[in-house]
Amino acid sequence: MSIESSTEIKALTFDVFGTVVDWRSSIIEELSRFGEEYALTADWPGIADRWRIEGYIGGIKLVSEQSLPFQTADQLHLRMLEILLHELDFPVENNTEAVRHLNQAWHRLHPWPDSSTGLDRLKTNFVISTLSNGNVALLTNMAKFAELHWDVILSAEIVGSFKPTPDCYRNAAKLLDLKPEQILMVAAHEGDLKAAQAIGFKTAYVFRPDEMGPDGGKGFDPDLPFDYVTHDFHELATALGCS
Amino acid sequence: MSIESSTEIKALTFDVFGTVVDWRSSIIEELSRFGEEYALTADWPGIADRWRIEGYIGGIKLVSEQSLPFQTADQLHLRMLEILLHELDFPVENNTEAVRHLNQAWHRLHPWPDSSTGLDRLKTNFVISTLSNGNVALLTNMAKFAELHWDVILSAEIVGSFKPTPDCYRNAAKLLDLKPEQILMVAAHEGDLKAAQAIGFKTAYVFRPDEMGPDGGKGFDPDLPFDYVTHDFHELATALGCS
Repeated sequence: MSIESSTEIKALTFDVFGTVVDWRSSIIEELSRFGEEYALTADWPGIADRWRIEGYIGGIKLVSEQSLPFQTADQLHLRMLEILLHELDFPVENNTEAVRHLNQAWHRLHPWPDSSTGLDRLKTNFVISTLSNGNVALLTNMAKFAELHWDVILSAEIVGSFKPTPDCYRNAAKLLDLKPEQILMVAAHEGDLKAAQAIGFKTAYVFRPDEMGPDGGKGFDPDLPFDYVTHDFHELATALGCS
Repeated sequence: MSIESSTEIKALTFDVFGTVVDWRSSIIEELSRFGEEYALTADWPGIADRWRIEGYIGGIKLVSEQSLPFQTADQLHLRMLEILLHELDFPVENNTEAVRHLNQAWHRLHPWPDSSTGLDRLKTNFVISTLSNGNVALLTNMAKFAELHWDVILSAEIVGSFKPTPDCYRNAAKLLDLKPEQILMVAAHEGDLKAAQAIGFKTAYVFRPDEMGPDGGKGFDPDLPFDYVTHDFHELATALGCS
């Protein structure tokens, strides 16, 4: 019988958009291809950013404030995509299947170069889980597309509340049947980590300077107040003793 | 852009205990080892069966009838294990860590010989998911132990109701964002398949004659009223066109 330390890290929960996958370049690529197919011209990087920031992050805020009913990431994405396409005078109503396919671009995001192999190293020592505001189908399809071999898919849709509300982290710990201090939250975003830390999770910051594009990055700060501050998943795996 | 048939199978949901893993021989082995360690003698196969049938299946029935509050499989298992150990005059109170470890024997069940490789074949063409009354932590730990490479872990704990209540299947379809007819329920138990069928799932029966031990089997009936009636996961993979 193994004697286990009760504060030892057992599971890693990952933020996904920006931390594991490069949503921005993937979405710009899909929007540009859609534009070519339907002879639309637009500032696709700007539209990608509005889709993400106004549509998704803004939508989550509205749901958290109860100005919108709870809905999935897919639904929030579709709501904003329709607004953006209407602005381009694209006839959404006559192209519902094409619009649905474009909306599912969020299921087909490319990983950062270290994500898949880094996760595989981490998976040998720990349970690795998503903890994302993305919905289950989105995260599942993305995992197959991007070769992310999660042990378990946890999401706001399952735990019943969006990050960074405390219940999201608390319910994840309950489903993993672990104490908060046995879980390491991994994210490229300080707010997510601070919210997890407030519940008692350990925390690992991963530096993703290109998340907002080549001009969006800030410098690496090794003194951020987290248990691990790393450049990528391989550095994290090594720091955690993975072979 | 791919044009998808709306009735094509996209995901397979699997019953786990009995269908994917051989719970009975695994549990008998763990109970016998515990008996040796603590100098207990007992009819371990009989105790394994009572743990499963009275404790787990009986417990789920009590929860479904609202005679017990909703609880996880781990909690139902522990409740029955304590009863069984008390009957053997084992001092449960003085050995809580050993009892907890024995209870987690359900996280360490051995797969049937075809399970892991058969699932890998099915995974190349479909989303493969658990749909079990086991809890998330149990299914996640078991997957690592038994090398079951699920795309997603769905369980009664997540969908909020135990099989065979209709909501369990309905909520699974909702989380997968699929129509019931796009999902194939795979199980060794007719009741589970009939309940899934009533919601509109397609169904695959897998013959597991040894689930209840060498004397427990019944004959193979190729005329069962399901879409696929097979002997193991490889036969199912071939029938579904997987290479």
